Amino acid sequence: MADSDRRYDVIVIGAGLSGLKTALELKKAGKSVLVLEARDRVGGRSMPGEICGQTVDFGGQWVGPQQTQLLAQARELGIETRPQYTEGANLLSRHGRVSRYTSTPKLPLPSLVELGLIERRWRRDIAALPLGAPWSAERAREWDALSLESWALRHVRTEGARYFVRTIAGALLCIDTSQISYLHFLEMLRSCGGLETMIGVEGGAQQDKFAGGAWQIPKRLADILGADIELENPVHAVEQDAAGVRVFAARGACLARHVVVAVPPIFASRIHFAPGLPARRAGLMQRMPMGAVIKVHIAYETPFWRQAGLSGSAVSGDRHLGTVFDQSLGDDGIGVLVGLIEARHAVALSAFDPDARRAAVVDDLVHYFGAAASRPIGYVEQDWLAEPWSLGGYAAHMPPGVMTGYGDTLREPCGRIHWAGTEAATEFPGYLEGALRAGIRAADVLRQAA
Amino acid sequence: MADSDRRYDVIVIGAGLSGLKTALELKKAGKSVLVLEARDRVGGRSMPGEICGQTVDFGGQWVGPQQTQLLAQARELGIETRPQYTEGANLLSRHGRVSRYTSTPKLPLPSLVELGLIERRWRRDIAALPLGAPWSAERAREWDALSLESWALRHVRTEGARYFVRTIAGALLCIDTSQISYLHFLEMLRSCGGLETMIGVEGGAQQDKFAGGAWQIPKRLADILGADIELENPVHAVEQDAAGVRVFAARGACLARHVVVAVPPIFASRIHFAPGLPARRAGLMQRMPMGAVIKVHIAYETPFWRQAGLSGSAVSGDRHLGTVFDQSLGDDGIGVLVGLIEARHAVALSAFDPDARRAAVVDDLVHYFGAAASRPIGYVEQDWLAEPWSLGGYAAHMPPGVMTGYGDTLREPCGRIHWAGTEAATEFPGYLEGALRAGIRAADVLRQAA
Repeated sequence: MADSDRRYDVIVIGAGLSGLKTALELKKAGKSVLVLEARDRVGGRSMPGEICGQTVDFGGQWVGPQQTQLLAQARELGIETRPQYTEGANLLSRHGRVSRYTSTPKLPLPSLVELGLIERRWRRDIAALPLGAPWSAERAREWDALSLESWALRHVRTEGARYFVRTIAGALLCIDTSQISYLHFLEMLRSCGGLETMIGVEGGAQQDKFAGGAWQIPKRLADILGADIELENPVHAVEQDAAGVRVFAARGACLARHVVVAVPPIFASRIHFAPGLPARRAGLMQRMPMGAVIKVHIAYETPFWRQAGLSGSAVSGDRHLGTVFDQSLGDDGIGVLVGLIEARHAVALSAFDPDARRAAVVDDLVHYFGAAASRPIGYVEQDWLAEPWSLGGYAAHMPPGVMTGYGDTLREPCGRIHWAGTEAATEFPGYLEGALRAGIRAADVLRQAA
Repeated sequence: MADSDRRYDVIVIGAGLSGLKTALELKKAGKSVLVLEARDRVGGRSMPGEICGQTVDFGGQWVGPQQTQLLAQARELGIETRPQYTEGANLLSRHGRVSRYTSTPKLPLPSLVELGLIERRWRRDIAALPLGAPWSAERAREWDALSLESWALRHVRTEGARYFVRTIAGALLCIDTSQISYLHFLEMLRSCGGLETMIGVEGGAQQDKFAGGAWQIPKRLADILGADIELENPVHAVEQDAAGVRVFAARGACLARHVVVAVPPIFASRIHFAPGLPARRAGLMQRMPMGAVIKVHIAYETPFWRQAGLSGSAVSGDRHLGTVFDQSLGDDGIGVLVGLIEARHAVALSAFDPDARRAAVVDDLVHYFGAAASRPIGYVEQDWLAEPWSLGGYAAHMPPGVMTGYGDTLREPCGRIHWAGTEAATEFPGYLEGALRAGIRAADVLRQAA
């Protein structure tokens, strides 16, 4: 080891919310920490944006009452929440027809009946998943051999109910039903509080937003850490032996007693580990691709939909814009809508040139909200697929066979290498809440160990 | 650009058979080439080994009469073939019972009847795949939503036939049936000459071996290229603009007009591309994990199985050692068996300590060949999962949803970036033949372009 090598108790790879939380908790406990970040900013999948002078979230933004760690963290930092606007009717677009609804989307009655049965079945299947170890459920192998799509083809009869299953896979996980295993889908439902919580606004995961933006949370944590974070310094390799770890980053090597990898599995798989990781852990990391999402904001002179009795919420499984919410600050100022382009729609629209993509978005908004939507005064977009250090969002998912073959290595340390990032959370993986929880857990382990 | 930057017509990333072939073909055409290789050796998934003084292949080794490019290449280099030993009975182990067979494994009659029907069905489904574009088959979306396992659960009734399907997925592709889409499985059968060719010895893909080892082929190509190859120089990033590409490797940057990426998708995904690759290409690369395989060689005083009327070939879906072949040089010298530990068995045994793994292998050989197998005089192993620049083998596969969502980007150049490697072959992907063909195709395109 060269004398010039810098030494720390813990090196954290990734300055997203998860890594920042780990670092800060350890620093508070008196440990010396260094956070290495590939990007030129902190926050990972949390990121600020702006439209017509209004600050918005280009990344994760909502919070629900179940997300206790995130709420506590925000409170501690003095960041307040604001309720998601919900007054008026929501919209569902299906096969080109837009219908209004308040609590239950308008589907044919047999489909609604079947949806009730499906939800009951999911609740029953979820109840059979051992906490933190879904791979050891009695029917794990059977459920993991199926994609959610082939599960639906087998168990769902009505077209409306199949449409619903496909739509929520896009809206909740930014994936197509053919790509995720039924077992991982069940585990996502379980760990994120159940279907109702995940799709819900009032009482659910979209109940509130953070005044000024959720991105302020990682930003403030990073401000406290200050010089302990190095941006634009991607890690290429990690070597470990009995004495410690050596981390090779773009701007040189440093030493530590432990390392916490707080990036999505596909980016963890880019790091060259020596000695090599166990086959099952390495196998997991090459088997967890990211979902696909583009987030857009569109501004109008006024929130005209409110006057028309609409909440601004819209959902569809066949339009580019699968999910829309009101993002206005009030009745009096400009109107802002936030839209999410999910799964195969995101993959397709990522290839459009920016003008064509904007046109496709405005087309969909006219489809939902009428001609008044055709004259936006502002448009901004964040294509997460095009972010080289994200390659998609919201999070990584498991195709068939992965959970039972490799899933139990998700949180298991490999010697001095520990795993954080929202994917490693047992509760709310894929959410800011999960990022925070996985970060806290990693810090808890290392507070004693380091 | 710094003056010190070196300039080439083409930079090839990866000195496996595919990359070496590309480089050599372009060099012959008068182009300046540089091959950058992460490992300390050439050959990729082709690699020499030794047991009791006998040279063997730790990687790909067999060749069949359909593999015309590989045979022609070997001939040109003066490397001869030797037939795989086939005299005597083959063995099948199923549920703990070993049975002898010559052409057809001993399965219950209803299973054999069903196997005939399955093969007919596969042949019919394969015939519906457009050449080079299986993603555009009429039923592509339906077939791609299914894992091979859920296809089998739906269409295969007898336990024996299901066992067969699972066993060939392991033996041919080193994967578990839950992990590959039925569409990609069909495309693998089609592109590799059909099931009979793939599992066959005489007239099939295991008909011949190369005297002295298949690894000599990349080795000789590399010898001709000489200083145009740089070992232990992994590529971190590739930037391209209208003028050319800049490749950032561990030991510095160099410039070229074009780059050929001749590594498996998971390793291509480790390279940081600027500007970012199109979402669908980047999506593909994070969705094609490697199969899992450990290759072992075991030496005995004599090829004792030959005297017992056995060919040395054994196959099983439930033993660790899923495939065994005779690797002896003749009747008179030592006896050598080569064994392949595939799919979940490889993942499991990779975690064993070396002594326990050897003991498990010898146990299986005693199970197949009797007590005489308990006293080997030599044992060597190559765990491809533990090779940091392979992370598995034989090749990458597509989980459900990948072929229809992303598959058409497999061979599509991204500006100045071209794709080789066996996975990019239209014929014999996963084989040495495919590596060669993909290399030739990349060179054909660039001979005109560069």
